Amino acid sequence: MRGVVLHAAGDVRVEERDDPRIELPTDAIIWVAAACVCGSDLWPYRGINEVTDPTPMGHEYVGVVEEVGADVRTVAPGDFVVGSFMASDGTCEICQAGYQSRCAHVEPVGRSGTQAEHARIPWADGTLVVTPGMPDADLIPSLLAASDVLGTGWFAAVAAQAGPGKTVAVVGDGAVGLLGILAARELGAERIIAMSRHEPRQALAREFGATDVVVERGDEGVERIKELTGGYGAHGVIEAVGTQEAMQQAIRSTRPGGHVGFVGVSHDVSLTGQELFYATVSLLGGPAPVRHYLPDLIDRIWSRKINPGKVFDLTLPLSDAAEGYAAMDERRAIKTLLTV
Amino acid sequence: MRGVVLHAAGDVRVEERDDPRIELPTDAIIWVAAACVCGSDLWPYRGINEVTDPTPMGHEYVGVVEEVGADVRTVAPGDFVVGSFMASDGTCEICQAGYQSRCAHVEPVGRSGTQAEHARIPWADGTLVVTPGMPDADLIPSLLAASDVLGTGWFAAVAAQAGPGKTVAVVGDGAVGLLGILAARELGAERIIAMSRHEPRQALAREFGATDVVVERGDEGVERIKELTGGYGAHGVIEAVGTQEAMQQAIRSTRPGGHVGFVGVSHDVSLTGQELFYATVSLLGGPAPVRHYLPDLIDRIWSRKINPGKVFDLTLPLSDAAEGYAAMDERRAIKTLLTV
Repeated sequence: MRGVVLHAAGDVRVEERDDPRIELPTDAIIWVAAACVCGSDLWPYRGINEVTDPTPMGHEYVGVVEEVGADVRTVAPGDFVVGSFMASDGTCEICQAGYQSRCAHVEPVGRSGTQAEHARIPWADGTLVVTPGMPDADLIPSLLAASDVLGTGWFAAVAAQAGPGKTVAVVGDGAVGLLGILAARELGAERIIAMSRHEPRQALAREFGATDVVVERGDEGVERIKELTGGYGAHGVIEAVGTQEAMQQAIRSTRPGGHVGFVGVSHDVSLTGQELFYATVSLLGGPAPVRHYLPDLIDRIWSRKINPGKVFDLTLPLSDAAEGYAAMDERRAIKTLLTV
Repeated sequence: MRGVVLHAAGDVRVEERDDPRIELPTDAIIWVAAACVCGSDLWPYRGINEVTDPTPMGHEYVGVVEEVGADVRTVAPGDFVVGSFMASDGTCEICQAGYQSRCAHVEPVGRSGTQAEHARIPWADGTLVVTPGMPDADLIPSLLAASDVLGTGWFAAVAAQAGPGKTVAVVGDGAVGLLGILAARELGAERIIAMSRHEPRQALAREFGATDVVVERGDEGVERIKELTGGYGAHGVIEAVGTQEAMQQAIRSTRPGGHVGFVGVSHDVSLTGQELFYATVSLLGGPAPVRHYLPDLIDRIWSRKINPGKVFDLTLPLSDAAEGYAAMDERRAIKTLLTV
């Protein structure tokens, strides 16, 4: 089969790879209907995470089940499925508590790379959710978004305790930040402040539910959030970047007793205990338990209540994956969808 | 009046100071029935926090109101009161949300020093709670504990989401950690693991509700907590020390999706974003909003349901304050009560 392999920073190739096969009785093999490029894929692409060996890429996916292992009960060949980027057994105490991304037997789906024609999904029963039927083509991008960026933005909005009467600020205007806005709106937040200086993204932020846009960053951004919130800071802040500046901006924009949901994969972030102590905010983040939210997210997408697929502003065939990476790296595209 | 003044590391003196007086119409002046030495007082006593000028000490207190400012409505001369170590207006959005320790107009009561015969309490209406009557003498230590260490342990237990069916571990066997155990029991935790290697403190921990004791620290302590919790880690962990080792021990002992309540005043603690991200735990700490819990705590003390005053294992007259500090510094005493 064909699949994307990163050979070195900036060196994305689509090449022949072995077809995946059932390795454990809990596995499923899917035909990948659509995959995409994640902001986190840009870390190795940019050489910030070292690339030592040719690496199969991709961890987001929707598709059709082709084959299942002997122990798989809840999905069958022919089912259209959406799954999380973290495979989870669904049965351990951590999964049962709704933190499937940190399952006691978690396996990153990305290890085998879903930017490919086929993919092996470990723990199929605990990881995959079957859609109500074959989706119309226009639903594919939104279902694909659910497999990571929507689910991640949703987790961040839940962690930031977005809800009625609340003001939520969002640091980061990538796909996750934008879908954090959508999630905050769906969860009933009264006021949603997008922090973005990029006009097309500001427009999508407003379409997804942002009521205000702040272009300032760092300390100035914090001051602006305070001005907009009676001097107190936001009740909740979503951090969707993963840098020191973004994390501090998020913590400092949150009022005491408020909540920070951070989902940007941390790079070189370091926080002093004193800053955390005197902030007196709740901090929750990490790899999002997307699987926990998937049934609800699929419902909202299937009924066309939400359209998170709008974050894909570039669609390319798998063979043009290299251009998909370049466009995101240069911020010409928010997010690239790859058709297989 | 007489009051404790710290002149330099290790140099505690009881000397004549000016009587406090009403400075603002929201102030009250109280006669201090009892005060005490806090673990946080040991930081400057040990020279870890620099002492540049002679510093009045103490921020915990119970006593009788002597005089109130013209705007004070809810307390009157003759009332017996318990108050938080942070004075709060009680009316701002932060106070209304239950985070009075971070009130928009917060004033640390310790600035004027409550290890003294009298003390000025700012924001009397928002800070002081009147007891149901004059307390019996045996209730004084418990009411005094409520003004900081009990309220702080309680906040930590709430932040760690202690409750029915939950396993809570407690890092730190000082007064706050011990009262965090009591709080976790009162909140209904099923299993409470005290981390302590000090026998008399282990005994008090068990009396307050600890079901298990772990003597190991650091990585070994973390392993022991995991062994006791099916490999998952505790649902909630209370951190009541404030050091790097204690904070990491707390975070690493918590299962994914669990909660860390940290109330040890942070010293030289630094956490990487990666550690926080991959821990996937909720982190909440800071100066405890004791005022929020005081009415409930006073009820439990008044009805003799709880006896947090047991943390005071040394009672001295104010004039012997220096020995009270030394005993705590050398861990001969858990906590020193000073009678005025």
